[in-house]
This record gives sequence, structure tokens and C-alpha cells, in this order.
Amino acid sequence: MTDPATLADRVRAGELRLHELEAHADHDTAAAARRLVLEAETDADLSTTGSYAFDAEVADSAIENMFGATQMPVGVAGPVTVDGGAADGEYYLPLATTEGALVASVNRGLSVIESAGGAEARVTKSGMTRAPVFRTGGIVESAEVVEWVREHEAELAAAAESTTNHGELLDVTPYVVGDSVYLRFRYDTKDAMGMNMAAIATEAACEVVEAETPAELVALSGNLCTDKKPAAINAVEGRGRSVTADVLIPDDVVEERLHTTAAAIAEANTRKNLVGSAKAGSLGFNAHAANVVAASFIATGQDPAQVVEGSNAITTAEEREDGLYLSVSLASLELGTVGGGTKLPTQSEALELVGLTGGGDPPGANGDALAEVIAAGALAGELSLLAALASNHLASAHEELGR
Amino acid sequence: MTDPATLADRVRAGELRLHELEAHADHDTAAAARRLVLEAETDADLSTTGSYAFDAEVADSAIENMFGATQMPVGVAGPVTVDGGAADGEYYLPLATTEGALVASVNRGLSVIESAGGAEARVTKSGMTRAPVFRTGGIVESAEVVEWVREHEAELAAAAESTTNHGELLDVTPYVVGDSVYLRFRYDTKDAMGMNMAAIATEAACEVVEAETPAELVALSGNLCTDKKPAAINAVEGRGRSVTADVLIPDDVVEERLHTTAAAIAEANTRKNLVGSAKAGSLGFNAHAANVVAASFIATGQDPAQVVEGSNAITTAEEREDGLYLSVSLASLELGTVGGGTKLPTQSEALELVGLTGGGDPPGANGDALAEVIAAGALAGELSLLAALASNHLASAHEELGR
Amino acid sequence: MTDPATLADRVRAGELRLHELEAHADHDTAAAARRLVLEAETDADLSTTGSYAFDAEVADSAIENMFGATQMPVGVAGPVTVDGGAADGEYYLPLATTEGALVASVNRGLSVIESAGGAEARVTKSGMTRAPVFRTGGIVESAEVVEWVREHEAELAAAAESTTNHGELLDVTPYVVGDSVYLRFRYDTKDAMGMNMAAIATEAACEVVEAETPAELVALSGNLCTDKKPAAINAVEGRGRSVTADVLIPDDVVEERLHTTAAAIAEANTRKNLVGSAKAGSLGFNAHAANVVAASFIATGQDPAQVVEGSNAITTAEEREDGLYLSVSLASLELGTVGGGTKLPTQSEALELVGLTGGGDPPGANGDALAEVIAAGALAGELSLLAALASNHLASAHEELGR
Amino acid sequence: MTDPATLADRVRAGELRLHELEAHADHDTAAAARRLVLEAETDADLSTTGSYAFDAEVADSAIENMFGATQMPVGVAGPVTVDGGAADGEYYLPLATTEGALVASVNRGLSVIESAGGAEARVTKSGMTRAPVFRTGGIVESAEVVEWVREHEAELAAAAESTTNHGELLDVTPYVVGDSVYLRFRYDTKDAMGMNMAAIATEAACEVVEAETPAELVALSGNLCTDKKPAAINAVEGRGRSVTADVLIPDDVVEERLHTTAAAIAEANTRKNLVGSAKAGSLGFNAHAANVVAASFIATGQDPAQVVEGSNAITTAEEREDGLYLSVSLASLELGTVGGGTKLPTQSEALELVGLTGGGDPPGANGDALAEVIAAGALAGELSLLAALASNHLASAHEELGR
Repeated sequence: MTDPATLADRVRAGELRLHELEAHADHDTAAAARRLVLEAETDADLSTTGSYAFDAEVADSAIENMFGATQMPVGVAGPVTVDGGAADGEYYLPLATTEGALVASVNRGLSVIESAGGAEARVTKSGMTRAPVFRTGGIVESAEVVEWVREHEAELAAAAESTTNHGELLDVTPYVVGDSVYLRFRYDTKDAMGMNMAAIATEAACEVVEAETPAELVALSGNLCTDKKPAAINAVEGRGRSVTADVLIPDDVVEERLHTTAAAIAEANTRKNLVGSAKAGSLGFNAHAANVVAASFIATGQDPAQVVEGSNAITTAEEREDGLYLSVSLASLELGTVGGGTKLPTQSEALELVGLTGGGDPPGANGDALAEVIAAGALAGELSLLAALASNHLASAHEELGR
Repeated sequence: MTDPATLADRVRAGELRLHELEAHADHDTAAAARRLVLEAETDADLSTTGSYAFDAEVADSAIENMFGATQMPVGVAGPVTVDGGAADGEYYLPLATTEGALVASVNRGLSVIESAGGAEARVTKSGMTRAPVFRTGGIVESAEVVEWVREHEAELAAAAESTTNHGELLDVTPYVVGDSVYLRFRYDTKDAMGMNMAAIATEAACEVVEAETPAELVALSGNLCTDKKPAAINAVEGRGRSVTADVLIPDDVVEERLHTTAAAIAEANTRKNLVGSAKAGSLGFNAHAANVVAASFIATGQDPAQVVEGSNAITTAEEREDGLYLSVSLASLELGTVGGGTKLPTQSEALELVGLTGGGDPPGANGDALAEVIAAGALAGELSLLAALASNHLASAHEELGR
Repeated sequence: MTDPATLADRVRAGELRLHELEAHADHDTAAAARRLVLEAETDADLSTTGSYAFDAEVADSAIENMFGATQMPVGVAGPVTVDGGAADGEYYLPLATTEGALVASVNRGLSVIESAGGAEARVTKSGMTRAPVFRTGGIVESAEVVEWVREHEAELAAAAESTTNHGELLDVTPYVVGDSVYLRFRYDTKDAMGMNMAAIATEAACEVVEAETPAELVALSGNLCTDKKPAAINAVEGRGRSVTADVLIPDDVVEERLHTTAAAIAEANTRKNLVGSAKAGSLGFNAHAANVVAASFIATGQDPAQVVEGSNAITTAEEREDGLYLSVSLASLELGTVGGGTKLPTQSEALELVGLTGGGDPPGANGDALAEVIAAGALAGELSLLAALASNHLASAHEELGR
Repeated sequence: MTDPATLADRVRAGELRLHELEAHADHDTAAAARRLVLEAETDADLSTTGSYAFDAEVADSAIENMFGATQMPVGVAGPVTVDGGAADGEYYLPLATTEGALVASVNRGLSVIESAGGAEARVTKSGMTRAPVFRTGGIVESAEVVEWVREHEAELAAAAESTTNHGELLDVTPYVVGDSVYLRFRYDTKDAMGMNMAAIATEAACEVVEAETPAELVALSGNLCTDKKPAAINAVEGRGRSVTADVLIPDDVVEERLHTTAAAIAEANTRKNLVGSAKAGSLGFNAHAANVVAASFIATGQDPAQVVEGSNAITTAEEREDGLYLSVSLASLELGTVGGGTKLPTQSEALELVGLTGGGDPPGANGDALAEVIAAGALAGELSLLAALASNHLASAHEELGR
């Protein structure tokens, strides 16, 4: 029998293991059985978690041991006009968050940006990376490996690209530390975030390296990728998309809408985002770009752990003759409009809301556009918070909004 | 009339603004109306997003412009025994993620750890910080301010603590850069993550600083906090909880369960997590701690943007006489069991599943225990991935699990 | 016989080893013999190196295997008025360098600063650190050690201070990574740079830690000191002296003397020193503070390898109503007026030129004053280079000055 | 009249300025006059500083306002066999320092390395960089500039190389932050350190950029070079030479000569140089490479401020079946055998001692070889200090050697 209660009993009797349930029932029944087990073994009531609105089987490649769904409220900011390299027109930005005031803050910023004619945005560099680490006998061999790699990049590209229909190897950069050689493979993964594609392609290339040189693979990722860790290599060289959004806001708009001045915002940005971050030994010279990255990533099915790299952003503010110039440059925004969590129902709906689902035309255009829209959202968040901070109202804003 | 369709029409007619709907209807109706507007203005079908399982009003302090909920599948890992400073017993760990293989990987790791008798864990430092930046006339005044602060910490504590029932000011550390003075206030915020508490308390203390010294407040956060940016100050000095989990796994368990050796795992850890991260200019010397932090944070209602700080983790692996010693030390894990997103229904259920809801006894104990359990989960993730990487099976594991 | 030629012959015959010569002759003869050996074994003519102007014996505690002296030209900049916490009056700054244009550049900067009434300067934090690393059995023991240390700082101070007449233990900060515990001991070492004092005192304290806790010392320096490596801990928390110099230069002085404007200098500083350094993943947000630190360190007998920490400096520039505000804040300037290389003849003469030799009154005042004077020199270097860069004249300046 | 006393009187009477003396007398007389002025105005006796052993005129392009020479004792370590890509044979290493025990420590290390057959070494990457910063109107223009640069690298190379006989432009890497564009020009500067060459060549290329794009030059160096600041870009991507030296030391040599074991040294290296540096937020994962870099740089006429970049080094230690494997990889060692301070008499003699003066055959070979020899010296310093630390003898070693 495959009703949840029976399955739960069998798990609790030791006949089945908790992660084997999908082999004995459909996915929703398995999840229900799992909830019964967990509720029996703990004090938890998991009823809301069990009231999800999709067929559990669609999440099969996204999760194991599923017992339900976490539901995070999602709000909308915008619309805002984005004049990007790929984005072109008005966009709504969905933000899933539990931080009160965040959506309101981004929305206010976008509204001000819209009053200034919208944001401009560009992706200036692009490429998903994977960097295996190899062991050698010592520096003499390491140097040989590096030389071989530099001379055989085409061979590595052929091997790597044999594993993928879409991906393209852009370059391979070798790094040496004693008897460890790191090869940072960088790929154009089009509209996919591309980590999986990069991993598989790199594994194929590694076989060539091992066959042709004395190098022995130790790990497919040697942390120079760098995935999900705060690393200068990403802040400097980029990973995923390097994208900037900026805006020039006339002085009267700054004053009427934000109740402050370009000079005050520029000062707050300098003392906080530039000098303060410098003193903190930071790789993120911004106010709260990660908030917008996290909320839009969760809403649209990106990998939330890559918010780490998404926080490698620099905000600049200048008092110009004709108003406030504000920019935010995200060095390593890793996202896609195909694959991974983007396929899940609510996440897919959020991408529809932005108007960017599936592969772009040309390939990569949707990924670029999404990056530009999120950058515009981050710009709005910076604008709004800087204005609020400059006015010394941060805590009271939170108080009013009741967080 | 306050049915969704009518409200939507009024928004589209320009009579109402999208963010004003809650003033004209209950929260669920407002969200429904918002979906209608968004669906009309874009190609999106938002029906799944609208099928959330809680009363929208409970999210009132967590979101604005709500139009539904993002549903992320949540799986469970464990149980695992955690012998912590606060945690004590067996714990399940809920993980909300869309990254296939993650839950399985953590679960496998926890299972191996359990075979070794469970994990040990300790919080070794604790405190939520907020660091306003002040403007002075120059270094002479800056030095005066610093001296005043050093001599009047009790006065600042009195002002700060007057705003809170639970929080306690631990210390204030001044930093000077020319005519900018940064004061890093550090608080014991018990079982709350504490950012809001810290902001309000610090604002009160700032008034004293402004009244008694020549310093003028520029921004309530001067980025030496540092919140949601990858900063060395957090990796070095900590923010939220500094927590370590470790385990000693007998050699036979490593071999039978992980099909590798302590020496191979130690080598992979050294070349990848230590040397590779060093070469990358990283603040995160681990394999994928952020994955576990992100997934458990989302499941339990923590702030997902603080995954950034959560990635400031160092993993160590040693071949000892009696097996593999593995540890992960998270320098700045910011979380709570009360307040913020923990109040939402599915998130609250996830905390029930862990067995850590509401304030602890003594206060702070639940926050400590949750940090220790998440650290044990991160340890399991490190163990599992290191073993897989060492075996050179990462990409194929993904392939099999179908991500 | 102990004439150089005989000794050299004996070395070449294998009867003596090159480093044993001081046991067989006075120091100058030993150095001369060493030159003969080296000249015989290589194509080198070491005659200039042998023409040093001091008694080799005075360098006995500073060098081994001495074969002469490196002579580096030394120039002078200033005088400049420094209104410091310890410095008070006019100071010359000796700079030993081989970089053409450096002394001229600093001199020009100091001259402009003098026109503006001189520089103000303050030491805002002080303390030499040494951070041993201990091995424990795991996090449970690590946490015990940390707790013991926090509760027994007085005991550690007693042990540490028993080894020194001048040094004072200011505090001990523990850091934990798995089964490694780092204790950062911070000392007031008065007018000595203090590394040696700190090492000896810390070794005594380590014995107590080992006796009273399960910790076992692995290395007297665990790299959280951090000595002679570019580390955020020093940039954030300071090491040696944290010192700032600043100046407000009237607009007419900027224009007449530097042929530029406050706005142009502020822009150059923002784009180069703040944003450029941010993008580079830097811990040094300045133009060339290290140049002044290196040249003054070599001239005055400081440790040139500590130029590394000396480069942890942030330069700020603002256009104020009444002119250009410029500051440089050096986080970790490690120096002394007693001990180490300060005792050597030319170095001692350079300190006499600054007017700061030997112990200060009160103790530490000479070290503070020297830090303030060097900071003023660094400020001048920043001013001069920023002005030149803003004017786009860097390369041509070098061309004219013939480097 | 141009005797020193007369000139000094004229300076003190206000008829001449201190920096104008070379226009009125030969360089030695000018320096002598300057000493008289300084001695009269301060309490300094500058007689030793005045007893330098070279003709002041040879230092004309290296210093301004010269009043003498700083004399730093110089010792010798080695000889050691270096099997490098360019170095080949036995080398002495001159070290100018005032840190007692340093030469002895390096010498001991080299002696052990020699017992193990000498060091192997390779330069794995090479190139001197200069990175101007340009102002644009915003991200749209910034993206245009980047695209233009990527498509016109040959044109930039032609302009850059028109200014130099030896230099070769290797590549140009653009970085964007809002309305600032940084172009990192990387050159092969052969046997010269090359900063000056790079600056002049880059200035020519900048004119092309300004002529062909909307970019306006703000500063010839925008700090992404990065020169004389501790920056991740150098640690990751290199600057000057990226060079590694390594050695495999048989267990019996480790035990007999260093009185410790490979395992103990590997443990000390891991806890101190890897984990400790990680926790410190460091870019330098070594024990004291900067000591050897500083001492050899000063001895051989390199730029001592570039010790900052020289400290970006990673040391690795492994217990292998056949002994201790030790390596040090210096990411950004900036040096030359021609130009700059290498022309000065004692510095030139030191280069003769190493056997590497003037241009190499092929060009660049002497620079490479010098890098490899210094790397071998750094390796020796690491070996010796790690062994001493592991034995917990650091402080006592200093005591015995009397620093």
C-alpha cells in the first residue's frame, strides 16, 4: 500500500528509509508520508508546508527528501524603464523576501529612477567558470602543464564543447601554487546560469589535461572558480555577468522625491560605501545590493547561495552639474532564464512577470536582460537606502514599516 | 467595492496606486487584485503564486506590494546528534533549495557523521553589530571623539539599552579614517537575529555622541557593521554567531561509507579549500557552506541576503591517527528563532521541526542551538562534497541526480 | 693570523666556514675576508660595498655574514609643521630611496602643506601584536581554551610582563578555527617597534596557557599577528600605530601651487584611490603611501619588510567650502625610535635630523611623533601625486626628472 | 663661491633654496652644503651619512635633495644551486638588513636545501602593468569604450610600443565601475622592472583611447595596476614575475639538520600559513617571505616599496613518502637587473655577486633568473622559520642572536 500513513509506518518500523519513499509512491504521497514521520518524531505541525500548489514531481530534479514547500511572500516593484544592451522597455521586478520595507524601498527607488527617464544598463563581461585543481610533482611539472595548456587551448575547447550543445569555452587561465595547478575555464553558457554545464564540460577537458601532461586531477573545483564564497577573483575578474546600471537624476527630482540633495547622497556614499567598506576590508562597496539580488533570485528561481557573489558590487554617486549620477556595478551576477529552479511553477511565473522566460534571441539575451533588470533594481535599492541614510532615517523607517 | 477585479480596474484606471491596495481591502484581496493588474499588464499567469497557504495579513510586516508567495521545495536531512554548547540531542535540518543533490549530499554527510557518534559544536563568539559613520572637522576632532567614546561606553550603553527589553550593548569599537569616525556597536540580541534592535539602539546612542562630541551622524550604517557585503571585518571579528562544528570519523567509516581515505580528503581540502581559496583572494575557505546556510536560512525564515556573511567559513581536514578530523568554522552566522521571517507559517513549522522555536532558556540558547545545528549541516555538506570531489565524481553525481 | 687574505684562504681551503669568521677576527676583518672569498668565487668587485663608514661591530646584532654595507642615497624633505598628539613643531623628513622624483614630490607636497599652515596628525590606536597558534583536540577544547583565556587575562598579563621592563599587555583576543586557537596578544611597547619584546613576552604567556588548558603551542606566530604580510586584520584593527595626518588647503593655494582644483583632486582620489582600489580587491586605498613609508623607514632604521603593513592606508579628499581637505590614515605603521636598526650610525643620524632619538617623554611619545611625521610625509606624497595625476603629468614628470 | 660652507650660508640667508644646490655646485659639494644647513638647523651630526663611497652625481636620477647615504649592513647567504627556467647553477644571495638572525636563518635554510640537491624554480607568468582610469558619461559610454578597446588592442600596442625599444604590450584588460573605465596594460619589460617604461607607453596608448572613444583620462594610474598597495589583483593575476621555488628534502636531512619532521613542518605550515592567514583575511600565506624580498631588494637596488607586492606569496608544505615537499610561490615579484637603483655602486656590486647584471640573453633572462634566486632565498627563509617555529624556538633564537 502506498498511502502516506502506511508508508510512514514502514519508515518508522525501519523497513524503509526516509529518502527512499519516492521509489514506493508518487512524489506527493512520498512527501506526505515524510511529513507524517517528521510530525511523529518531533513536535512539528507541518500542515502549511504541506499545502503547496504544485505537483511534487516537477521538483524532482531540484530537491531530495522533499516534505513540502517553503512559502515566502513575494511582492512587486516597478515598473521601470530599462535601456539596456538586451533589456529594452518597461519591467516589473518580483521580490521574494521577509524583510519588511525592502520592496517599498526598491519600489520608491524605481519610481524616482522612472521619473528621471529610467535606468541605463549594460553587461560588460560574461562567462561562467569552473576551476579544477591538479597535483603535479613540483614546480617544474607545474610549469610544463601551464605551458601545455597555453598552447593547447583549442584542444581543450574541443573536448569541453563536445559535452554541450549551447556552451562555448571562452578561455582557460592557469594559476600555479607550488605543485598545485588551477585552470580556470570560462564559458559562455547563454541563458543558463551554467554551473552544471561548466562542470561537465570541464570534466571532459580535465581528461585531456591528465592524458597529455603529468597533472593529476584532485578536485573538479579548486575554489578559483569561485562558487558561493566571497572571493576577490570574482569581484575583480567577474563570474556570470558583470553588469552595471546607472541613472542621472535631476536635482529637482532628488529634492522633491527624496528630500535630500545630490551632494548629501554623494557624501553618504563616499563615507559609507567607499571609505567604510575600504576600512572593513570588504569586497562589496555598496549599501545593500545583496537584498535585491537575494529577493529577485529567490523569486525567479536562481540559486540563493550565489547571492554571495551577487554582493560583489560597487556603488558610485556623483554630484554633477545636472543632478545626481548614481551607478551600481555588480561584478559577478550568476543567473539564468532556463534550467535549475527557473522551471518551478512560482519561479517560472515570476520570470513571466519580468517577461524573460526560456532562451533568448539571440541566445544569452534573456540572461543579459534579466541581469540588467536586477541591476536596475539594485540601483533603486541603493538610491532609496542612501537617501534614507543620508536623512538619518533608517531605523525610524523600519519602525514605521513595522519590521 | 473591494473585490479583486474592481480594485484592479481602479488601479489600471489610475485611481489607485498598486501599493495602496491594502488600504482598501484585506490583504488577500489586495494581493489578488495585484495579480490581476500584473497579469493584465504582462503575459504572466500568476495562479500558482496566488495559491499560497497562509493568511496574507501575517506577512504584513514582512513584505509590501505582495502578490502571492514563492514556493520553494523543502527537504529534510538528518537526524544527527549534535553535542553543542546549547544544542543537545538529535536534530533534523530542513533545507529549502532548488539545487538538485544538495539535500542528498547533506543527508549523506550527516549519516556518516552520525555513524561517527554525531558532531560537536560550539558558539565561540556572539554579537550583532551596527556601525554608524560620523563626520568630523578633521583628525583632531576624530581623535577627540574616539577618546570620548572610549571613556563613556557606559553612557552609550545606557542610551542604547533604553530602547530595548532584551538587547545588551557588549562593546563599542571606534575606527578612524580622516574626518570619518566609525563606531562599531556590538550587541547581545539573544534569540533574535537583532539587526533591527541594533539599529534602533544605536540610533539612540548616536544622539548622545552627537550631543557630547563634535561628531555629526552621516549614516546609521557606515559599512563597518558589515551587513550583507563580503567583508574581512566579519570574517575576522565575527558578526552574529561565530560557530564551529567538528567530527572525528574513524578510518573504517571513511572508507566504507565515503569510499575514500582521510588522507585523500585532507589533500583535497588543502589544495582546494585552503590553497585554492588563498590564491583566489577569498574570505571563504570552504567548499560550499553557503549552500547549507542558504537552504536552512530560507527554510527557517532567516534573511537570505545574510548568506553573504554565512559564507565566511573555514573548513579544516586532518588525517589523525584515529581517523579523519573535519571541522567547519562559520565566522558570522546571523540568525534568530524569534522575529523577522521566523514568524511566517512554513518557516515557523521548519523551526518546529528543528525543535527550536521562540526564545530560548536561557535567552539566546535557541539561537545558539540553531547555529550549532546549521554548522553541523554545513560540516556534513563539506564532508560529502570533499569526499565526492576527492573521488572526482562531482559532475557525474549531478548528472545522475538529474540537475 | 687574522688578516683578511689569510682568513679568506682558510675559508676557500675548507678550514673555516664563511659564517664563522667573526670568531677568528674582528668584525671589519671578517667582512673584508668575506669580500675576498666572494670576489674570488664570483666576478664581483665589492670595493664600494667594503667602503662603509662605521665599525662593523656595531652591526653585530643586526646582520650575520656581513661583507659590507649597501649605500642608498638619502635626501631630505621639509621642513613642515606638524601639529600632532606628540609631534609639535617643524620637522625634516629624511628619505632614502632610489626612485627619482620621490623626494622632490614629497618636498613639493610638504611645501604646499606648510603654506596651508602645516599638517595635523594623531595616533588613534597603538599596540604591537603577536598571535601564537595552539592545537586542541577539537572545538570542545578550543571553546574551553577561549573561555579560560577570557577569564584569565590578568594572569597572562603577569606572565607576559614579567619578561619586560617597558612592555605592557593591552589585551588578548582569541580566534578559533576548528582545533586551532589563535591568541592575538597586543602590547604597548612604548618607543620600541616591539616585535621582539612581544615575542618574548608572548612566549612566557604561552607557557601559562599550555599549563592551564589543553592547548598545545604549535607556533609562536600563527599569522594573525600579522607580521610582514598584507592582511585585513591589520588594515581593520591596526598594528603598531594607527595614525592619521590631514590638512585643509585653501583653494588659492591649490590653484597657485598645484595648478589644479580641489574638485579635480577629489575626483582623482575617488576614481583612483577609492573606486580603483575597491575594484582591485585592495587593502590599500592610497596613491603611494608605501613610497614614503619605505624611504623613511630605511633612512631611520625601521624594518623595511614592514612596509607591507605600512601600505595599509586610506587617503580621502574632499572639496570643502574653504578648500581641499586631504587626509591619509595609516592603519598599521610599525616603527620605533629605540632598538633594532635605529642604533646604526647613519640611521641614528637620520633620527637626530627628525629630532626624535631614543625613548620619549612620556615613553612612547617619540614613537608617536615619528609616526605623525611620517604620516605628514605620506600626506605630502599623496597630495603631490594626486595633483600630478589629476593633471595627467605623471609620466612626463618622471621623464623630466630622468628616472 | 661653491664651497659647502658658503653655499650653506646662502641657503640659511634665504638666497638659495635647499633643493637648488646642485645648480650651483657639483653634487658632492651640494650634499655637503645640505648637511651643513641641516646640522645647523637641527641637533643632528650627519658625518657618517656624509661618508659615502660613491660620486653623488651617479645618484642624480635616483634622488633629490641628497645629503648623503644611508648605510645598511649587507650579508651573504648561500651559495645554493638553483635549477630554474633561467637560473642555472650556484648562486650567492646578498641581503641588506638590520634584522638580526635573518641572514643566518636564510643561510641555514639554503644550506639544507643544498643538501637536498638545491632548489628548482620557474617563472610561470610575467608582465609589468599600468592601469589608467578614464571618465565616461555613464555605463553606455563605458561599454562602448570597453568594446572599442577589445577590438583595437593592436592599435593600442602600436602606440604603446612606439615609445620603447624593449617593451612589448602583452594585453589590455578592461574593468568597468559605472562611469569609470580602467584599462590594465600589461607589458613584457624584459630585464627592467619596467614601471617607468610601462607608464610612458601607456600614456601614449591613452592618447589613442581619448582620440577614438568618449573616454577622458583622469589618472595614468587608476590603482588597478596595482603598484605598492596590497591588492588581490596582484596576488591573483600577478605583476612583475610570478615565480615559484620548491624543494624535496629527504626525511633524514629534515631530522638531522632541522631537528624536526616533515609532518611537524607541514602541520605548522597549515595552521600558521594557511589557516592562520585565512583567518587574518590575508593576501600573504607565508611566514616571512617579505623579509627575504626586502633584504635582497635593498641589496640589489630594487624598489623597496614594492616589497608590498613581494609579500603576496603562498607557502605550501607536504609530508611525502620520500620527505618534505616545500614550495613558495611569489605572485608579484617586481624587479630588474637594469635601470633604477641597480645602477648605483653597491647595488651593482651586489648584482655582480649574484652574477646577474645588465640585460640577459635572451632579454628578460637575467630578470627571470634573479626572480628565481630570490624565490629560492624566500624558500630557505620559510624552511628555516617553519622549522624553528615548529620547534617553538623563535623567541629564544632571537635572544641568542641578540636582536
